Amino acid sequence: MRGVLELTPELEGVQTAVASALGRVERRFAEQLRSDLPVVNELCGHVERYRGKMLRPVLVLLAGLAAHPEASSSEPGEILGEEHVTMAAVCEMVHMATLVHDDVLDEADVRRRGRTLNTLRGNEAAVMLGDYLIASAYHLCSQMRSQDHALAIAGVSRVLCAGELLQIDHREDWSLDEATYFEILERKTASLIAVACERGALISGADTRVAGALGAYGRQLGVAFQIQDDLLDLTGEEGLVGKSVGKDIEKGKLTLPLILHLADAEASERAACIRLIEGASRAGGGEERANLADRLLASGALARAHHIALERVAAARASLDAIAPTPARSVLERMADAAVRRSL
Amino acid sequence: MRGVLELTPELEGVQTAVASALGRVERRFAEQLRSDLPVVNELCGHVERYRGKMLRPVLVLLAGLAAHPEASSSEPGEILGEEHVTMAAVCEMVHMATLVHDDVLDEADVRRRGRTLNTLRGNEAAVMLGDYLIASAYHLCSQMRSQDHALAIAGVSRVLCAGELLQIDHREDWSLDEATYFEILERKTASLIAVACERGALISGADTRVAGALGAYGRQLGVAFQIQDDLLDLTGEEGLVGKSVGKDIEKGKLTLPLILHLADAEASERAACIRLIEGASRAGGGEERANLADRLLASGALARAHHIALERVAAARASLDAIAPTPARSVLERMADAAVRRSL
Repeated sequence: MRGVLELTPELEGVQTAVASALGRVERRFAEQLRSDLPVVNELCGHVERYRGKMLRPVLVLLAGLAAHPEASSSEPGEILGEEHVTMAAVCEMVHMATLVHDDVLDEADVRRRGRTLNTLRGNEAAVMLGDYLIASAYHLCSQMRSQDHALAIAGVSRVLCAGELLQIDHREDWSLDEATYFEILERKTASLIAVACERGALISGADTRVAGALGAYGRQLGVAFQIQDDLLDLTGEEGLVGKSVGKDIEKGKLTLPLILHLADAEASERAACIRLIEGASRAGGGEERANLADRLLASGALARAHHIALERVAAARASLDAIAPTPARSVLERMADAAVRRSL
Repeated sequence: MRGVLELTPELEGVQTAVASALGRVERRFAEQLRSDLPVVNELCGHVERYRGKMLRPVLVLLAGLAAHPEASSSEPGEILGEEHVTMAAVCEMVHMATLVHDDVLDEADVRRRGRTLNTLRGNEAAVMLGDYLIASAYHLCSQMRSQDHALAIAGVSRVLCAGELLQIDHREDWSLDEATYFEILERKTASLIAVACERGALISGADTRVAGALGAYGRQLGVAFQIQDDLLDLTGEEGLVGKSVGKDIEKGKLTLPLILHLADAEASERAACIRLIEGASRAGGGEERANLADRLLASGALARAHHIALERVAAARASLDAIAPTPARSVLERMADAAVRRSL
């Protein structure tokens, strides 16, 4: 589970099942990307560096375990099948494609402690490789038993892109309100995480009520994760976070702590912050970023953003009450807690 | 059929059926892209400007007519159904996505006589809009009766992206050989046109032999079309062609006439041409381009490229011999001839 959370011994059965399934997910992922063209394989090699926590695959698998009608009686290892593995690989591939294209968008220099593809091979290769990943993801899920999965993955991809476009449209919009911020976040980040959980459940034969509950869990978890990312982008250290920090500010993206701070700030403070943000977006300057972080700490905006993240974690946990208590459900609950504790 | 070809009266039944189906294709295309976000709809509005000959939709429809088991007895208007319309819209959407992303790649300033999306809204919006188009295409074809269609569209998209990556890898490779040129072309251009024809046939209930024949027709037609584009890129006038010319040279892409010329040229001529190409790729200079065109005309390279295109047209026509002679087949034959006669 790659540091997303630590598991206690009694949850080892789940841990073992998920870990071994993740191995199969990685193999399926690699097989699906393999090409007869060496240049394609070489570029896909760079993509390996983007691989991180495997959050979405882990959620497909855990939801698959937690939502299975015989979850309490069956061995976890027996529940996870080929379709769980395929869907987990598909979700990771879609996510990876957005990371590759985000780097074209965001000119991020560092991600997962490796140079990004676009700085290595130029934007052109990055755009096309992202497209190759998307096509490969659809190709893989079009081979699943039910066509409904391909429809869901394509549908959430549309939502995801719309969210990106909405965000681009609000770039350097210093009066971005909380409602629009959450609309972008729900589409851009939470939607795919929700689908990962929902699909994992449906593949296990869960009814729509249970699948819906896991989808709701994923949506809340995704929001909590993103708010934590916002906080880390302002206060995190690159060495620790393992990807570019301060990038949101640099690209004129207002994050939740800044939105909360600006909404309550006096005209003069507001103007000062906008100057700092614009300064940071020009220079990418760590100094402006540190200055902003101090002001947000002082005004309590950082604490309030953290509090909102905690509320989403509670909502995520609450939505799990709809399903039977199992070790897998416990792990999902712990993941929700871990989302806002992580420093990466 | 938007100037792809002129039809004689006896083919009017086909013309009318295709024209009315194209109207439905355009409506389905627009409906599928509609979003609840105004910014997305606004950006999709720009995409309308990319709409050109609708070659791929026309081919889905004509192949659907020509391959139908009752093609000779039925009224064309009765043959074309919802699934033909959907597949036609899907193929155009995939093609449109590649155009939008190609403009990011190729920094083309002019396409279809309109400013390109990336110059209007920046590369970031162009990348994301292309992704939105791809996702919408998959979402649409995941709603078709047979999942096999979604698998085919995703599969050809992978091939298409691999072709783009191979081309990027050979940028400014002045010793690019004919074999690699055709490998790029087959993947990047011919593959989707082949699938459009094959799918149109399969939707009409054609057997694999007939569908294969139409796929082979599409592949040859696609190659002929691309070679004609190569010729126009060297010798065409922007006002006439309606999209950027000289762009291949500008981006260090060797096209067939140049490959043929360089392969036979003496060392000194070869060096002179490469200097001209590099000059053109730096300056985008029309002068170098005109100079090159003169040399390629003198050496007969332009004529040889045109001859190769004619051979592909003949091969395309020949593959149609496998299907019953019908008005729709005649139209496909005329389209093949028109591919190398067009000045746009």
